[in-house]
Amino acid sequence: MSERLADEIVEIIRTENLEPGDQLASSRDLARRFEVTTPTIREALRRLEATGAVEFRHGSGTYVGAGIDRRLLANPHRPSTSPAAVLELVEARLVLEPSIAAAAARTRDADGLRQLEDSVTNALHPPRGDQRPAVHFHAALAATTGNTLLRETVEALLHVRVREQIEIRHRYDDRERDHAEHVRILDAVRAGDAALAQRLTEEHLVSIREAVRA
Amino acid sequence: MSERLADEIVEIIRTENLEPGDQLASSRDLARRFEVTTPTIREALRRLEATGAVEFRHGSGTYVGAGIDRRLLANPHRPSTSPAAVLELVEARLVLEPSIAAAAARTRDADGLRQLEDSVTNALHPPRGDQRPAVHFHAALAATTGNTLLRETVEALLHVRVREQIEIRHRYDDRERDHAEHVRILDAVRAGDAALAQRLTEEHLVSIREAVRA
Repeated sequence: MSERLADEIVEIIRTENLEPGDQLASSRDLARRFEVTTPTIREALRRLEATGAVEFRHGSGTYVGAGIDRRLLANPHRPSTSPAAVLELVEARLVLEPSIAAAAARTRDADGLRQLEDSVTNALHPPRGDQRPAVHFHAALAATTGNTLLRETVEALLHVRVREQIEIRHRYDDRERDHAEHVRILDAVRAGDAALAQRLTEEHLVSIREAVRA
Repeated sequence: MSERLADEIVEIIRTENLEPGDQLASSRDLARRFEVTTPTIREALRRLEATGAVEFRHGSGTYVGAGIDRRLLANPHRPSTSPAAVLELVEARLVLEPSIAAAAARTRDADGLRQLEDSVTNALHPPRGDQRPAVHFHAALAATTGNTLLRETVEALLHVRVREQIEIRHRYDDRERDHAEHVRILDAVRAGDAALAQRLTEEHLVSIREAVRA
């Protein structure tokens, strides 16, 4: 019931062409529209909140969330962590991301390439007063394939261990080296050299794995 | 509030060592325990239902769901489909799965290899009276890496377009050929031949892509 209701609310969002940040009708209005109680509507909205399809703003209402078009998600209530789990994540990335880099070099989607260049530049010199959220280099690399499922896969993986990623950054704190490696990968992608992009991404992740193991 | 409450319910499931299929305390008991109202508990439970961490059984109660330990999910309210989206999924799998096959051949995790053998055998000769759910060949292949995040990634991707996968199966209905290709991949993984496993998986997915494009 709540699942079908949630699907129907998503359907309203789509047919009314609402975008992330747009406000939804109130729970009371939705309850009237679907002829159910307000608590039932709120249960359905909480389901949608779990996947980022909607978000609540205290005292203001319900808004379309950034996750509305997302197909792959990190579980928001993911299992607690262990050092082995962090290593497993790096190992998974090591299997997946070199091929993604190769695909990026073959496709070089224009929007993705621009994001990739931005993310490399911003890492050392964050633009001041710029409202755009920083795009993670590895997510931008996946976006350069032009395949949004690949971008979502990398984003979901990075999100799985968001707190541990922060810890990895602390341990792997050679930002100059990180930046230099990103620049080389970007150059290989820009040049359309799939084999080189693949190899450089592999080497980059191997050095991250060494930092995690240390 | 509902998000923190959902996290705390997950915490209870973990500290009490509840497993998928085990029953949770009633909403009323949980409400008393957390000193909130029953509708507030139900909102939190609906959040958890969205990610498969719990499931409701009508007239029976709330149970721990199969998704409790899952870190990567397919969005249950995913965007509606288009032929381009199905092709995008196959393209994404073509980038990711050959490397996964190579990693499987290098690791050959014993449990995974057994599942892989089962899934190949069951495809043509489903065991009668067996209660075990059939494991998808491509998910079992990822499991053979021993990395559960890789298995979850493939499972989430296969789940993204579960209806379309059924349609693909109809179009790509040469089960004998499908089975023969799976057997060859299994043999390469079993022999520890990473390069061959990678190439055969790529060829297998290319032929699926041709079927999708047709």
